[in-house]
Amino acid sequence: MAMVCLSDFEAYAKKYLPKIAWDYFAAGADECTTRDENILAYKRIRFRPRMLWDVSVMDIKTKILGSEISFPVGIAPTGFHQLAWPDGEKSTARAARAMNTCYIASTYSTCTLEEICVAAPGGLRWFQLYIHRNRAASQQLVQRVEALGFQGLVLTADLPYTGKRRDDVRNGFCLPPHMKVKNLEQAFEVCKMSLLDPSVTWNDIYWLRSLTRLPIIIKGILTREDAELAVRHGVQGIIVSNHGGRQLDEGPATIDALVEVVEAVRGRVEVYIDGGIRKGSDVLKALALGAKCVFIGRPALWGLAYKGEEGLQDVLRILQDEFRLSMALAGCASISEIGQHLVQFSKL
Amino acid sequence: MAMVCLSDFEAYAKKYLPKIAWDYFAAGADECTTRDENILAYKRIRFRPRMLWDVSVMDIKTKILGSEISFPVGIAPTGFHQLAWPDGEKSTARAARAMNTCYIASTYSTCTLEEICVAAPGGLRWFQLYIHRNRAASQQLVQRVEALGFQGLVLTADLPYTGKRRDDVRNGFCLPPHMKVKNLEQAFEVCKMSLLDPSVTWNDIYWLRSLTRLPIIIKGILTREDAELAVRHGVQGIIVSNHGGRQLDEGPATIDALVEVVEAVRGRVEVYIDGGIRKGSDVLKALALGAKCVFIGRPALWGLAYKGEEGLQDVLRILQDEFRLSMALAGCASISEIGQHLVQFSKL
Amino acid sequence: MAMVCLSDFEAYAKKYLPKIAWDYFAAGADECTTRDENILAYKRIRFRPRMLWDVSVMDIKTKILGSEISFPVGIAPTGFHQLAWPDGEKSTARAARAMNTCYIASTYSTCTLEEICVAAPGGLRWFQLYIHRNRAASQQLVQRVEALGFQGLVLTADLPYTGKRRDDVRNGFCLPPHMKVKNLEQAFEVCKMSLLDPSVTWNDIYWLRSLTRLPIIIKGILTREDAELAVRHGVQGIIVSNHGGRQLDEGPATIDALVEVVEAVRGRVEVYIDGGIRKGSDVLKALALGAKCVFIGRPALWGLAYKGEEGLQDVLRILQDEFRLSMALAGCASISEIGQHLVQFSKL
Amino acid sequence: MAMVCLSDFEAYAKKYLPKIAWDYFAAGADECTTRDENILAYKRIRFRPRMLWDVSVMDIKTKILGSEISFPVGIAPTGFHQLAWPDGEKSTARAARAMNTCYIASTYSTCTLEEICVAAPGGLRWFQLYIHRNRAASQQLVQRVEALGFQGLVLTADLPYTGKRRDDVRNGFCLPPHMKVKNLEQAFEVCKMSLLDPSVTWNDIYWLRSLTRLPIIIKGILTREDAELAVRHGVQGIIVSNHGGRQLDEGPATIDALVEVVEAVRGRVEVYIDGGIRKGSDVLKALALGAKCVFIGRPALWGLAYKGEEGLQDVLRILQDEFRLSMALAGCASISEIGQHLVQFSKL
Repeated sequence: MAMVCLSDFEAYAKKYLPKIAWDYFAAGADECTTRDENILAYKRIRFRPRMLWDVSVMDIKTKILGSEISFPVGIAPTGFHQLAWPDGEKSTARAARAMNTCYIASTYSTCTLEEICVAAPGGLRWFQLYIHRNRAASQQLVQRVEALGFQGLVLTADLPYTGKRRDDVRNGFCLPPHMKVKNLEQAFEVCKMSLLDPSVTWNDIYWLRSLTRLPIIIKGILTREDAELAVRHGVQGIIVSNHGGRQLDEGPATIDALVEVVEAVRGRVEVYIDGGIRKGSDVLKALALGAKCVFIGRPALWGLAYKGEEGLQDVLRILQDEFRLSMALAGCASISEIGQHLVQFSKL
Repeated sequence: MAMVCLSDFEAYAKKYLPKIAWDYFAAGADECTTRDENILAYKRIRFRPRMLWDVSVMDIKTKILGSEISFPVGIAPTGFHQLAWPDGEKSTARAARAMNTCYIASTYSTCTLEEICVAAPGGLRWFQLYIHRNRAASQQLVQRVEALGFQGLVLTADLPYTGKRRDDVRNGFCLPPHMKVKNLEQAFEVCKMSLLDPSVTWNDIYWLRSLTRLPIIIKGILTREDAELAVRHGVQGIIVSNHGGRQLDEGPATIDALVEVVEAVRGRVEVYIDGGIRKGSDVLKALALGAKCVFIGRPALWGLAYKGEEGLQDVLRILQDEFRLSMALAGCASISEIGQHLVQFSKL
Repeated sequence: MAMVCLSDFEAYAKKYLPKIAWDYFAAGADECTTRDENILAYKRIRFRPRMLWDVSVMDIKTKILGSEISFPVGIAPTGFHQLAWPDGEKSTARAARAMNTCYIASTYSTCTLEEICVAAPGGLRWFQLYIHRNRAASQQLVQRVEALGFQGLVLTADLPYTGKRRDDVRNGFCLPPHMKVKNLEQAFEVCKMSLLDPSVTWNDIYWLRSLTRLPIIIKGILTREDAELAVRHGVQGIIVSNHGGRQLDEGPATIDALVEVVEAVRGRVEVYIDGGIRKGSDVLKALALGAKCVFIGRPALWGLAYKGEEGLQDVLRILQDEFRLSMALAGCASISEIGQHLVQFSKL
Repeated sequence: MAMVCLSDFEAYAKKYLPKIAWDYFAAGADECTTRDENILAYKRIRFRPRMLWDVSVMDIKTKILGSEISFPVGIAPTGFHQLAWPDGEKSTARAARAMNTCYIASTYSTCTLEEICVAAPGGLRWFQLYIHRNRAASQQLVQRVEALGFQGLVLTADLPYTGKRRDDVRNGFCLPPHMKVKNLEQAFEVCKMSLLDPSVTWNDIYWLRSLTRLPIIIKGILTREDAELAVRHGVQGIIVSNHGGRQLDEGPATIDALVEVVEAVRGRVEVYIDGGIRKGSDVLKALALGAKCVFIGRPALWGLAYKGEEGLQDVLRILQDEFRLSMALAGCASISEIGQHLVQFSKL
C-alpha cells in the first residue's frame, strides 16, 4: 500500500493498532463533534490563489520563539507514545530532529525526559506541563526540564478535569502494566488523572514564571477574552487548541477560534494552532489566518504506528511537500508572502 | 452493556420495550421534523469555553420557584409510565426524590396522585393539567393536587387537539386493558382525548388562579408574543416546549424558541425548557441562554424502561455528572457564573 | 396497509402503476432538482404557533374567484388520468365534486370535456389551456369550455417547448394506443407536442380575453416581474407554478417564488400555488405566505391510482383533516386568521 | 443504453476506459473538493425564468474574439486524447469543426499540431501553451502554431508545478510507451513535467506578445486582482479556470470566481470559463453571469471514449439542444437576451 497522504497512515493505524490504543488516540469527548469539526472547518475555507508569481525558489523555513524550523509544522503533545510504537517518545524525538522541527513532549510520556534527550541530542523541544496538586512535584519537573535543555514550557489550560470520552469509558482504558508515566515520581493514576489540580488560575502563570526562565506558551485558548488575559499575564506564545476535541465537546473548531485569537493578540505574542491538520493546504490556511506554526497530534501517532521514527518522518515529509506545493500553487514563494488575502470563508 | 450516556438507554428501550410502547414514546407529529430538530438545534450551538478559572469546588444546585433542587434538571410530564415499567409513576417519583429534583406528574398518569405521593413522601412535585370539557372535573383535580402537597400547577397550552402521530395511527395505539388513566373519574377515551377542551383561552388562567394558590406554570409557549401574554396573565413560570415534537410539526426547536421567550420575559418570571436534552452540555447551553431549569421527557422513560426507579436515577446521575463536567470545562464553578457569553450560534 | 398520509398513496402508486406511467407522472426535468426542491422548500419554513385561542369551532371554507370551496385545496391540471385509473378524468371530476372543491381539467385529458361534465354535473371546474399553433383550434376549445359551464380558463405559460425529462426519453414515453387526447380534433402528437405554439406572448392574453367572458388565470409565474405583467394584462388569477419541476430545472421552488409574487401583486388578483404540497401543514404555510388556495398534482394521481374516485377523496380528506388540525395547533380557527406572522424562514 | 445526458457518457467512460486512463482524466488534487465543487456550485444557482416571450425562433450563435461559433461551448485543453480514443486529438478536431465550434489543443497532445490541422482543415482552433524552461522551445512552438493557422494562444497560468493527484501517484501514472507528447522535441518527462518553468511571471506576457500576433488568452484566473493584472498586461481573453480541480484543491468553484472576475474586467476583455459544465442549463448560468463562452474538458473526453469524433459530436449536440431549450424556457430567444437578471444565488 502506497503511503500518499495522511489518511493512508490513519487507515494503517486503525487497522494495526490494538483497538484499545486506537480508540484512546482517536477518542473525542461526548459525541466527537469538536474532534470532527476541527477537520470540517478547514474544508469551509477557500483559497484565493494568485497566478504568475515566480515560485521557482521556495523557502518554507520559519522561526518559532527565535528558533528556526524547516517548515511550520511541529509535533503537538500527546500521551503514551509507546502505545503506538515500542520506542515511544524516543522515536518521536528522533524524527522531529531529523526533520528539523519542534517536538512538544507531553507530561504523559512513556519515556523519561532524560531518555528523550539522549535519543535526539540537540533537537528543538518544548515540554507540556499539567500542574500537579502537589505543586512541589510540578516545580521539580519544570526545573528538570529547563536543566535538560528544553526551550519552552507549554502549560495546558483546558484540562481541569478529563473530558468524557465514551469509548475510553466503555473500554476501561488504562495503560498496560509494562508502560508507565515515567516523569512523575508518585504512582500516577492515569485513568482518573486525579493528581491534576483543578484550582489552577491565571495567577499560576506568575508562579510558573517564578520557577523558570523558559518561555511560557499557554495551550487550550479558544476565545479573544482568554487570549487577552494570556498576553496580559506575560506568556510568550498561545496554542489555539481544543485538545483534539477530547475535552469540552461542541466548542469551536480551532481554525475558527484562531481568527478571533489572532485579532485579539495583535501580534504581541506568537500564536500557534493544533487540531484537524491533515494536509499541507491546512497548514497554509492556518498560516494565512495568522498562525506562526501548526502542531500535529494524531497524525504523528499514526506515523509512529506505521514505522516508528521513520513513519513519523514520512508523515512530516508528506506534509512538507504538500505545504510547499500549496504555497507555490497559491502564488507564495516564502512564508512572509502568506497572508489573509489568500483565504476566504465559504458561506456554506 | 455499559450505560455510559443517554443514547445507551435509548438503545436499550428501543430493544426491550414492546413496539407499540416504544413507538408511542418515540412518536413525533407528521414527519417528526420538530422532534428531531429539538436535538439538532443544540448541535448548532457552540461553546466559548473559558480557561484557568478555579473549578476545584463545583456547586450545581439551583432553585425553581423557591425550591432547591440538586441540579437544574427535572422530570417533564409524560403519560403512561406503566408502559415503561410496572410500577409506573411511583418509580418516577421515587427516583426524582432520590436525586432531589422536581417531578412534574402528568394528567395521564397510570398511578393515582395519591399513590405517587405515598411512594415518595416529601418529594418536590408539580402537576401537569389538561383542562377538561367538564370544568368541574378539572376543578376537583386541581384542588386534590393542592391538598396532596404538589407545589406547582403546569397548564399544557399546546394540545387543543392531539397531534397526528403516524405510527400511533398505524398501530391503533391504545392503553392495554390493565392500565388506566386513574386520575380522571369518568371512563377516559385515551385514543381520542375527546374530553379535552379546545376552547381554552388565556382567560382560563384567571379561572385557574381562582381555584388554587399554587403557582401556575404554562407549558407549550414558543413565541415572544405568547410569552408576553403569559406574563401579563400572571403565570409564575413558562416552560418553552413543543410537546416533544408531538403536536404541530415544523414549529421551532425549543432551544431556538427559548432565546426569544427569554428576551420577551425580561426576568419577570422563571423560564424553563424541555425537548431534545440528551447530554449534560445541552443543559449548560439551555441555562446559558436563560433557562432556569430543563426537564427531560423521553430520557426519563428510557431510564424507567431500563430498571425502573434505579434506571431513572442512572439517567439523572449521568446528566448530573456530564453537566458538572461541562460547566467546569467551560470555566464555571457555579450556576450563577453561567451566562450568554458561554455560547454562540453556529452559522452552519 | 393503512393509508395515513399522502406518502402512503405515493408508495402504493409506485408499486402498482406500470413503470412507464409512474415514471411519466414522477418525472422532473433534467436532474429533478426543482421537483424535489418544491418539497424541500416547505421544510425550511417554520411555524410560529400561538397558544390558547379558542379553536373549538373550526371553519376552513374559502372562496376562489367568488366560488366557495370546502377547504383551500383544489386539483391541479395534469394529463392522462387514464394512465392512473380506467375512468380517468371522470373519476377526478367526481371526487372533486364530492369534496366540494375545484378541479382544473387539463388540455391533455383522456376523457372529453363533455364526459367530464356529465360525470359530475354541477362541480366547480376550470379548464387548463395550451395555445395551439392553429389558433382556430384553441378558439373552438375555449368556446366549448365556456359553453360547458367551466368557470375559469387557466393559461399555461411555461411550456413553449416540453422540458427534458430523462426517464421519458429513455422510456420512449407515448400514450398507449387505446388512450387519446380527446379534446383536440386533429391527431395529436403527444410525444412531441409539436402543435403547441412557442410564439405566444403577453399580448395573447388580450386575444384570449376577446374570446371568452371566463376569468383568465395564468399558470407558471415565478417572478415579481411576470406577476406585475400578469396583473397589467388583466388576468383574474395567478398560479405560482413550475410545472411540478417538469419544465426548466433549477428554477425556484414555488413556495419561495410565492413570496415575491404575492408582494408584487399587492392583492390586486388572487394568487394560488401548486408543487410540493404533501401535508396539511404545507397548505397552511402557503396560505400564511399569501396563497388563496393550493392545487395538488401528483398526489391526486396517486389517489386515482389507489382507488379511482374513492382514492382521490381519501387523499383530499387526509389533507383536509391535516390542514384543519395544523390550523388549530397554530392557533387559527378560520382562514381569515391565517397570516404571515405564523411562519418564518429557517436559516438552514 | 440510450445516451440522454452527459452523465450517460461519463458512466460509459468509467466502465470502458482502462482504470489508469479513467483515473487520470477524473483525477482532482488532494481530496477532489474543488473538482466536485465546480459542479455543486452550479446547483446553488437558481434561475428566474420569464414567461410568454416569443421563443419560436431561437438563435444561439455567438462570437469569440471575432470568430462565429454555432453555440457558446468549446473544447477545453486536456491532455492525451489517445488515452480515450485511438485517433486522439484528430478526432477531437474533427468533431469541433463538424459542430462549428472552437477547439483548444493542448501542449500535451498525443498528435502533432500538423496532424490536427490536416485532420480538420479550416476549423477554429486555439493552442494551449505551457512555458518551457527552455524558452527557445516555447518560442518555436508559438511560431509553429501561428504558422499553422491557430487563431489564439492560451497561456496556462496555474501550473508552475503539477498538483498532487493521489490516484495518479498510486497508479504511477505515465503515458503508455506507444504514446508521445509529440509537440515537444526533447524527450518529455510527463510524470514530472519537470520541463515547465515555475518562474513565469506577468512580465512573460510581454515576452509572448513579442513572439506572436495571435491574441493571448490567459487561463487559470480566479480572483479580481489577477483579472485586473491580466487586463493591464494586455491579454485579449481570460478563462476562469481551476484546471478542473487538478491543481490547488479548495480554491473557488469557477462559477463562483466568474462573478468577481467579470466585475473586475468590466467588459474590457472577453471572459470564458471551464469546469463543472454538465448540462445546457449550466452554460446558460455561466453566460448569465457574464461568460462569453464555456469550455468543456472531461465531458469531451467521455464523448471521445464513447465513439471518437462521433461520440464527441453527440456530447456537443446534447449540450446544444439542452442549452437552446433552457434558453427558451427561461424566456430568451437569443444570446443577447441573456443577462444577470436570469439567475440568483441560492442561500443554501
